[in-house]
Amino acid sequence: MKPTKMFAAALLLGSSLAAMPAAAKEGMFTPDQLPEIADDLKETGLKLDADELADLTGFPMGAIVSLGGCSASFVSPQGLVVSNHHCVRGSVQYNSTAEQNYLEDGFLAKTMDAEVPAAPGSRIYVTTELTDVTEPVTKGTENLSGGERYALVDQRMKDLVAECEQTPGYRCQVASFYGGDQYKLIKRLEIRDVRLVYAPGDSIGKYGGDVDNWQWPRHTGDFGFYRAYVAPDGSAADYAETNVPYKPEHHLKVSAGGLKEGDFVMAAGYPGSTSRYARLAEVENTFDWQYPTYVTLLNNWIDTIESAAPDGSDARVKYEARLAGLNNYEKNLRGQIAGARSVGLVQRRREREDALNAWIAADPSRAHYAADLTALDALTAESAAAARQDFWYNFATNSQLLGTAERLYRLAKEKEKPNAERESGYQERDMTFFKQGLQALDRRYDPAVDKAEWMMFLKDYIQQPQAQHVAAFDKALGLTPNMTDAQLSRKLDAYYANSTLDETEQRLALMDASVAQIEASKDPFLQLAVALYPHDREQEAESKDRAGRGLALRPAYMDAIIAWQRENGKITYPDANSTLRVTYGTVLGGSPKDGLVYTPFTTLEGIVAKNTGEEPFNAPERELELIRAENYGPYELESIDSVPVNFLSDLDSTGGNSGSATMNARGELVGLLFDGTFESVNSDWDFDPRTTRTIHVDSRYMLWVMSLVDGATNLVEEMDVVN
Amino acid sequence: MKPTKMFAAALLLGSSLAAMPAAAKEGMFTPDQLPEIADDLKETGLKLDADELADLTGFPMGAIVSLGGCSASFVSPQGLVVSNHHCVRGSVQYNSTAEQNYLEDGFLAKTMDAEVPAAPGSRIYVTTELTDVTEPVTKGTENLSGGERYALVDQRMKDLVAECEQTPGYRCQVASFYGGDQYKLIKRLEIRDVRLVYAPGDSIGKYGGDVDNWQWPRHTGDFGFYRAYVAPDGSAADYAETNVPYKPEHHLKVSAGGLKEGDFVMAAGYPGSTSRYARLAEVENTFDWQYPTYVTLLNNWIDTIESAAPDGSDARVKYEARLAGLNNYEKNLRGQIAGARSVGLVQRRREREDALNAWIAADPSRAHYAADLTALDALTAESAAAARQDFWYNFATNSQLLGTAERLYRLAKEKEKPNAERESGYQERDMTFFKQGLQALDRRYDPAVDKAEWMMFLKDYIQQPQAQHVAAFDKALGLTPNMTDAQLSRKLDAYYANSTLDETEQRLALMDASVAQIEASKDPFLQLAVALYPHDREQEAESKDRAGRGLALRPAYMDAIIAWQRENGKITYPDANSTLRVTYGTVLGGSPKDGLVYTPFTTLEGIVAKNTGEEPFNAPERELELIRAENYGPYELESIDSVPVNFLSDLDSTGGNSGSATMNARGELVGLLFDGTFESVNSDWDFDPRTTRTIHVDSRYMLWVMSLVDGATNLVEEMDVVN
Repeated sequence: MKPTKMFAAALLLGSSLAAMPAAAKEGMFTPDQLPEIADDLKETGLKLDADELADLTGFPMGAIVSLGGCSASFVSPQGLVVSNHHCVRGSVQYNSTAEQNYLEDGFLAKTMDAEVPAAPGSRIYVTTELTDVTEPVTKGTENLSGGERYALVDQRMKDLVAECEQTPGYRCQVASFYGGDQYKLIKRLEIRDVRLVYAPGDSIGKYGGDVDNWQWPRHTGDFGFYRAYVAPDGSAADYAETNVPYKPEHHLKVSAGGLKEGDFVMAAGYPGSTSRYARLAEVENTFDWQYPTYVTLLNNWIDTIESAAPDGSDARVKYEARLAGLNNYEKNLRGQIAGARSVGLVQRRREREDALNAWIAADPSRAHYAADLTALDALTAESAAAARQDFWYNFATNSQLLGTAERLYRLAKEKEKPNAERESGYQERDMTFFKQGLQALDRRYDPAVDKAEWMMFLKDYIQQPQAQHVAAFDKALGLTPNMTDAQLSRKLDAYYANSTLDETEQRLALMDASVAQIEASKDPFLQLAVALYPHDREQEAESKDRAGRGLALRPAYMDAIIAWQRENGKITYPDANSTLRVTYGTVLGGSPKDGLVYTPFTTLEGIVAKNTGEEPFNAPERELELIRAENYGPYELESIDSVPVNFLSDLDSTGGNSGSATMNARGELVGLLFDGTFESVNSDWDFDPRTTRTIHVDSRYMLWVMSLVDGATNLVEEMDVVN
Repeated sequence: MKPTKMFAAALLLGSSLAAMPAAAKEGMFTPDQLPEIADDLKETGLKLDADELADLTGFPMGAIVSLGGCSASFVSPQGLVVSNHHCVRGSVQYNSTAEQNYLEDGFLAKTMDAEVPAAPGSRIYVTTELTDVTEPVTKGTENLSGGERYALVDQRMKDLVAECEQTPGYRCQVASFYGGDQYKLIKRLEIRDVRLVYAPGDSIGKYGGDVDNWQWPRHTGDFGFYRAYVAPDGSAADYAETNVPYKPEHHLKVSAGGLKEGDFVMAAGYPGSTSRYARLAEVENTFDWQYPTYVTLLNNWIDTIESAAPDGSDARVKYEARLAGLNNYEKNLRGQIAGARSVGLVQRRREREDALNAWIAADPSRAHYAADLTALDALTAESAAAARQDFWYNFATNSQLLGTAERLYRLAKEKEKPNAERESGYQERDMTFFKQGLQALDRRYDPAVDKAEWMMFLKDYIQQPQAQHVAAFDKALGLTPNMTDAQLSRKLDAYYANSTLDETEQRLALMDASVAQIEASKDPFLQLAVALYPHDREQEAESKDRAGRGLALRPAYMDAIIAWQRENGKITYPDANSTLRVTYGTVLGGSPKDGLVYTPFTTLEGIVAKNTGEEPFNAPERELELIRAENYGPYELESIDSVPVNFLSDLDSTGGNSGSATMNARGELVGLLFDGTFESVNSDWDFDPRTTRTIHVDSRYMLWVMSLVDGATNLVEEMDVVN
């Protein structure tokens, strides 16, 4: 890297931090909230009308879609969809062979003919309708018991979904907002013919890999393209050669001009879950007990799998994904624990509750809130106690074969009811996913590893005090406090030796088994599942009762929050729940810790500086050459004297936001949201404006890679690229 | 940490980077060079006269001392000396007991009576005279062979030292500059009664520990105090109750006002060794072969010790220091390899050599340089080949008992010569250290570990091609290419079983043994030492011959560098050689990598943010309370709204600089140099102004800790604290 470049990047700081607002823009707003904060949106820099943003089927929200777990957006009138590389990577992998490794080489269809089916189960969900169903869901539930309330609400939600899904090709859900204060029915076109169009190779799309995960500085080309296909009549259809590209009503223009520091920026996507309004008792229980306990358990778990499935073994291949997930989670939890300590998260929550309590106490007309909060806190304590009570038992039943047996027996039980009354996950609409789950076991199960994991969990369970034991489980499995490892091991061996649940055909056949047939089965896992069923249902009923009571108390708590914050000039957004949200703010660096500053943009030169030639820092030679030649095309950002690769903003995001369209003040695509900084790892609990930063891949880098590195000129031409 | 604090610190960046000079100030200048660069010193901000700085016995240089390995300075007329905590920590440890752990609690003598002797061997060296001896050392050596030249130069240096040390209480050395272009005789008062005065506890003085080693941001209170004592007549003397504080002619005032960003700053100290003028071939050999080979070997070595001396074993205690050293070195080498790659170190050196070659070729009168460079490069290649040739053999003889045997036999051999002609390290003046070395083996030797290490080295050696074997060694030890581990192990067992070198008395007695007595010994290690002696002397003679040839060629190369750089307006400083140097520049943050910026100061609040309560992030509760109360005393730096803890500069430093007085434009102590950033790890080879940053502890933090945390008010009062 040339010194002029580095210093230029560093000098930029001056302007950036001087422009730093007093507080970053907390909030994952539902689109219909945006008109309420129109003034702030305008002040922050939005050029569109906030009312436009509230229209889910208008521009630009009509272009925003979900991949189920990831967010995405239409970027051409021909159904071209852009999302993160890590969101489409499964489809790249699915299409790769030993001879043609698209993960390494990247995949590019130069024509539509060359586009290939995405991985099985890939979906593009286009929201077409959103209806408030609070009244039909909640009316008359006021005086019910917790369990009754839960059951009634649950049944009404299922009925609404069933009715909505009468339209073929659509998938519906009822989402709960503010802890049950509001319910919305969301109707989405479910596009099932999804095709892979383009993804750069891992050496661009996954540059930095796990090493850079959650890290800034970042240089990841985390983008890839799908295309939505439908039947010629425009209806959703399974893959067919005769299908045609879906023509969305709206698509985003793609900005080649991009952003500069301090510019307005917003992202629209489907954040999964947050706990911003969790009560102090829950936060304390999580950070003081649950997360630390998990960290210890995860480390044991990882060690157990690594021992049972040694490096290079066939078993290891099956457990790589699980290991990666456990390691990722362990790192995340450690980060959360450290982060919570360093920002004083618990103390911040305590202060917020104190302030809320003071507000309630200040006016006798708010006394009802105090009563509800007392009840809610009692419920929170009860839930925390139940979680601790069940913690080790839940892990002790966490063998894959036992879990499979339990699901199969549950299915047989549920099938005795009319479809509409069955538990969610066991209705006819769920059977495709249910079957896929049973099939997937093949690729991620090894008996020796499953047994080793189960052994480990059981040994932990056996050590717990009697009060945390489940008599039915101890009896069925013959557990005793003083049993030796060898005795336990022999016992489990008999389970695996005498079970046929490891055979796919057998598992699938059992989907049609009756309760009596399963109860008559000699399969030890099925027998154990039958033995545990009464206790588990009892546990579930208690859990539902608590949930049902929460459905009454939590809305009251949220009402207090909403009223209190409104008095302080703040609009309360609901916790993330996988529904469409908009977050806005500015392009902004940060000061992650004393002595250290993040600049808001990274540069192409940073790729060269990081490059070791070894995965995950193995950028393609062609890219390195272009950078060394300073061949920036028309994508240079003058203030950094380079093409920006990734950038930081103070947007409010979480898992599920991956792939979210990042838009400028005019609603043009300027990038894709793909990660948060390490210091943001606690933001699910607490948005701390000092430390929370979201990471985006810059549209200029996307266009530069497409135009100059990968030759995806057909797509650049297909999109509306604007300056 | 309060947001206002963090943002204030971040905002500071603006001014800092705008003020960033075009290039940081490379150069470890000898004080006599400073008048030559007086203009630049003045321009950079020095308020003193450069001529003053050149006077070694005037102010301020007269206040600068060496601890032998660390740098230090007088800060009171009563012989009070300040250096780094890590430089005085051995003395804290030496005075600690199970009941009174000063490492944990810190040590503070509130009166002189309470001061305690520093660890045995502690010294304070006060330079009193410096004489150019180039002519007497080099005259008439022009036409000698390499070996002859080496021997003559070496003898003349020893004679000069012997003559100089006729004055009792003084220690002398002849230092070579510019690869033998210049020799200076340095005479230093050797103060032997050194007492520990004050050191904060590890929780301040070693805050961050190994985790933060080489890291920025940093929050280490790396300072501690000694006092120099002499006999009542002012002469150096061993510890005695009747001794009195040494009265230095000069001492530094201590600044309570400190520095702000962009201010002039300089440090005076004793940097150990650099290779700034190493030829490309040497740099390539180092980074392409030597360092990577070392990294592999070090990892094996560490594993071997950890297996042979398990955690918690008595043996582990003895090897903790070695393990820490090996781990530190391994991390350093990995950092160097990565750093060299990321800044293109080899390429930068190649470009410099190309530029020098072009300059030589541009003028026929410079042709003699070309001839000398060709010869020097041939010699460099020869040395590199020899290093590879001997590499594995040198490790294969690296058992502690074998090394001891070799030194003892060598001593007997050397003692057959007159003292003046003996090899350095074996003269009478060296016998105190020689004896201490033999005694120290007790505390760092375990036979099982020593054997395991030796086994490991021997197995590596056996695998090398025959050309890299030493016949005498193979024969004496009975090594064969196909011997099994068990055979080798039994062989070594016999060595350890039959040796008495592990007995201290035995080792010390052998210091008086004659050659004949050692040759007659049945001790297998002594027998092996005798057998290896002829080969090792031959190896040494070849090495001296190469060194002697280098003594002719390297000055010619440095002449070329000096002339070439002078034409480019640059004064050439000599490589570091543990002699007094001055480096100057400004207080300056940095941009260590794309997307990241270092701010120049850390704050007290950063200590709280880092604090986990667990070592090494376990600041004393009293300190944390003072910080939370924002009790800054008079030591606040307004621009960061806190007391600065550590700061960065673009000064040029290396190992040995630890404890160097960091001075402002008026020569007042504003801090102590104690480390470099991770990105500076290659600076011994190549000062890269983009990445090289030195880390200092701020005098304001020192004074704050002394006044408010540790109650060392007696010392604050003793020093001349100025604003």
